[in-house]
Amino acid sequence: MKVVKFGGSSLADGEQFEKVVNIIKADQTRKVIVASAPGKRFANDIKVTDLLIEFAHKTINKEDCSSTVKTIWSRYHDIAAYFQISEQLLQPLLQELIALPKADYPNQDYLMASFKAHGEKLNAQLLTLVLQNYHLPAYFLDPQEAGFMVTDNANDTQVMPETYKNLEKWSSRDNVLVVPGFYGITKDGLIATFSRGGSDITGAIWARGIKADLYENFTDVDAIYAADPRIITHPHAIKVMTYRELRELSYAGFSVFHDEAIIPAIEGQVPINVKNTNHPDLPGTMIVPEHDFHPQSIITGVASSSHFAALYLHKYLLNKEVGFTLKLLQIFYKFNISYEHMPSGIDDLTVIFDKRQFNEQIRQQMCFEIQQALQPDQLEWFDDYAIIMVVGEGMRNKIGVMKNITMPLAQKHVAIHMINQGASRISIMLGTKRADAAAAVKEIYQQFFK
Amino acid sequence: MKVVKFGGSSLADGEQFEKVVNIIKADQTRKVIVASAPGKRFANDIKVTDLLIEFAHKTINKEDCSSTVKTIWSRYHDIAAYFQISEQLLQPLLQELIALPKADYPNQDYLMASFKAHGEKLNAQLLTLVLQNYHLPAYFLDPQEAGFMVTDNANDTQVMPETYKNLEKWSSRDNVLVVPGFYGITKDGLIATFSRGGSDITGAIWARGIKADLYENFTDVDAIYAADPRIITHPHAIKVMTYRELRELSYAGFSVFHDEAIIPAIEGQVPINVKNTNHPDLPGTMIVPEHDFHPQSIITGVASSSHFAALYLHKYLLNKEVGFTLKLLQIFYKFNISYEHMPSGIDDLTVIFDKRQFNEQIRQQMCFEIQQALQPDQLEWFDDYAIIMVVGEGMRNKIGVMKNITMPLAQKHVAIHMINQGASRISIMLGTKRADAAAAVKEIYQQFFK
Repeated sequence: MKVVKFGGSSLADGEQFEKVVNIIKADQTRKVIVASAPGKRFANDIKVTDLLIEFAHKTINKEDCSSTVKTIWSRYHDIAAYFQISEQLLQPLLQELIALPKADYPNQDYLMASFKAHGEKLNAQLLTLVLQNYHLPAYFLDPQEAGFMVTDNANDTQVMPETYKNLEKWSSRDNVLVVPGFYGITKDGLIATFSRGGSDITGAIWARGIKADLYENFTDVDAIYAADPRIITHPHAIKVMTYRELRELSYAGFSVFHDEAIIPAIEGQVPINVKNTNHPDLPGTMIVPEHDFHPQSIITGVASSSHFAALYLHKYLLNKEVGFTLKLLQIFYKFNISYEHMPSGIDDLTVIFDKRQFNEQIRQQMCFEIQQALQPDQLEWFDDYAIIMVVGEGMRNKIGVMKNITMPLAQKHVAIHMINQGASRISIMLGTKRADAAAAVKEIYQQFFK
Repeated sequence: MKVVKFGGSSLADGEQFEKVVNIIKADQTRKVIVASAPGKRFANDIKVTDLLIEFAHKTINKEDCSSTVKTIWSRYHDIAAYFQISEQLLQPLLQELIALPKADYPNQDYLMASFKAHGEKLNAQLLTLVLQNYHLPAYFLDPQEAGFMVTDNANDTQVMPETYKNLEKWSSRDNVLVVPGFYGITKDGLIATFSRGGSDITGAIWARGIKADLYENFTDVDAIYAADPRIITHPHAIKVMTYRELRELSYAGFSVFHDEAIIPAIEGQVPINVKNTNHPDLPGTMIVPEHDFHPQSIITGVASSSHFAALYLHKYLLNKEVGFTLKLLQIFYKFNISYEHMPSGIDDLTVIFDKRQFNEQIRQQMCFEIQQALQPDQLEWFDDYAIIMVVGEGMRNKIGVMKNITMPLAQKHVAIHMINQGASRISIMLGTKRADAAAAVKEIYQQFFK
């Protein structure tokens, strides 16, 4: 039994829908189909989810929504027309879209969640109609009916533990179950969505729930690559990798798969197959449990991300000052700032942040409070910080990996500002200036893959 | 004006005392002389401080102390005899030693502190007599009279801020001031000692207090070396280094200078000259403020220490779990355990401890509580952990240092378990197995100094 998730570009128009139908038809074990909202059809296209967000804002501001609704509906209507679905069958979907502003919402957050979720909800219903048109036993399964229960956080929800039990009983149904991704139902019967791109999470939860043999994740790339194709031309496609490797690479910008989505798959030990809707015969990338994996190379991938900043503190006897770190963590907590890493020396501490949490005012206020409370001898802020992750199960207990990373960087005069090795056994984390990140990835890739 | 501290081996017997007298005579700017207790005269000798600790224990246990007192007194008596100091001048010192058990102490901690401190107190008085014998204007300055005030922690005290002001006025005295190292006086007039080896701290406090031009620290080595002579035969002697470099190297076992002693010197910006009492004409090692230093080489020294242990934790989404680190710190706090470093990955955390804090029971209980409270997927303990520090102001903004460290280690098949670079800009910290530490130091030393 397989759970199959199709991304937004796989369900963007009639032609893409046809590929999806063929994929579903080709394998009867494809039991649960998770649908995303229609994505981009061409580079400058607007995703339906973004149109729905616009629709929600206009509703909140009591602006005229008619042109937005028309644009949204045209996306579904065009797909339906491709398959000659009758207007009569389509009417309920249009009514549902139009009715969105009229419903009661406890607050604007839930209004937003409900509007956004309908990108998936309408598309799943449309896909059901299309599959039925091909005489497949498709059944649209609403999250409410399925028992897909989530927490009260309207736009960044989490799955509730009872969901897994509720989903399990659906595995015995004969239908092809078509479920909308991205959202679930709160205990008050309200729609709440995962973070953006959350259909990956929905699929993983279903895969764990029905104890699937495989979770197929169809997207628009042939495989997960060992490096970013924008940096390395024709990078090596990864055939098999572990859950852990994917998590480490996701952290530094590998965005093929939502980084929270892997957790239910791990908990259920369901392997994931990332495949391309446009080339379904290619093997794609398998993501498997650690015990099923025998590394063929030292490193599996290298990634970089430049949305980091670093705070450097120097104070003599810092490592003897009990509570120094605790005070610092309390200040971060007060400003609702989370830190990523905190390498410490004898009298020094560097704190690395995801800098998207800051604006200039918060940064200044936080630094001011740290100065007041901890009285460091030195406090410096570095704004252009990139993190490079070199990841591979194959580097466990392997000697000389660090040499092979640092040697080519030294030859190309790339300065390494931070190295964090030893936290994870399957990765090495480097810090460089933002401007050096691409060169570093290039050199490391060449060293291990050429 | 100079403050000059002589270590225990420099004041161990008559011949050593004579060298000290000559050093003091040779330079009239040597104003404040800090005396240690008599140290070892030969490899298996017992230091007077250890004899005094034995004396204190026997007093507490109401055992016969006469043989211990006799052994202690013989040390001072032999030195006095070497200089033909009269028994009459010496009598008050013997009376002071004998009177120790009869005094009132608020508790056993203060008894212990007072007994220990008399190693320095008697030796400073004896040195005063010897200097006066040579017609030098020596004056024994008791910490009580000097205003050398310290906190209430009997055997691990800290200097009080007012001490600096109190000491300053002594700088105008014409005498050579002979002061005992290692202890000060609490607000209740009690003797409290620094941690063991604390005469270095006394000297640094005096140097800051009288705004000395130089703090000379006389010991029994010609210089501070770039590596441990037990690992590297005839290592390179360091001519000049910075305060910071010394602190980083002290951390990993460089024990020439007490690691707290450097702070008052830094605060007063007094340069330190580590010299050898046995070869006073050699230049020794100068320890200077950062702004006075122009590095001549990339690294200044490499040191290793193996009293570490590491705890490895793995938990999925650990970096999204707010308060994970906080909970961990609270458990450490409960067990009164301080951590050294905490490199973190995406789903992993390694905590490095000074393992001298643990016994097997505490370790097991702490790990049990961590397991209960944080429910990691994986928890492992590594007992044979060594830390290697590669230190040098010259490595700031220098590219390729890491390559030159990791390359020779890879060639010799030394596995690096942890690298912490980026906390301090002047050092790189490596973690290896204890058995690999000496080999690592050797390879790194060869790479940079040969």
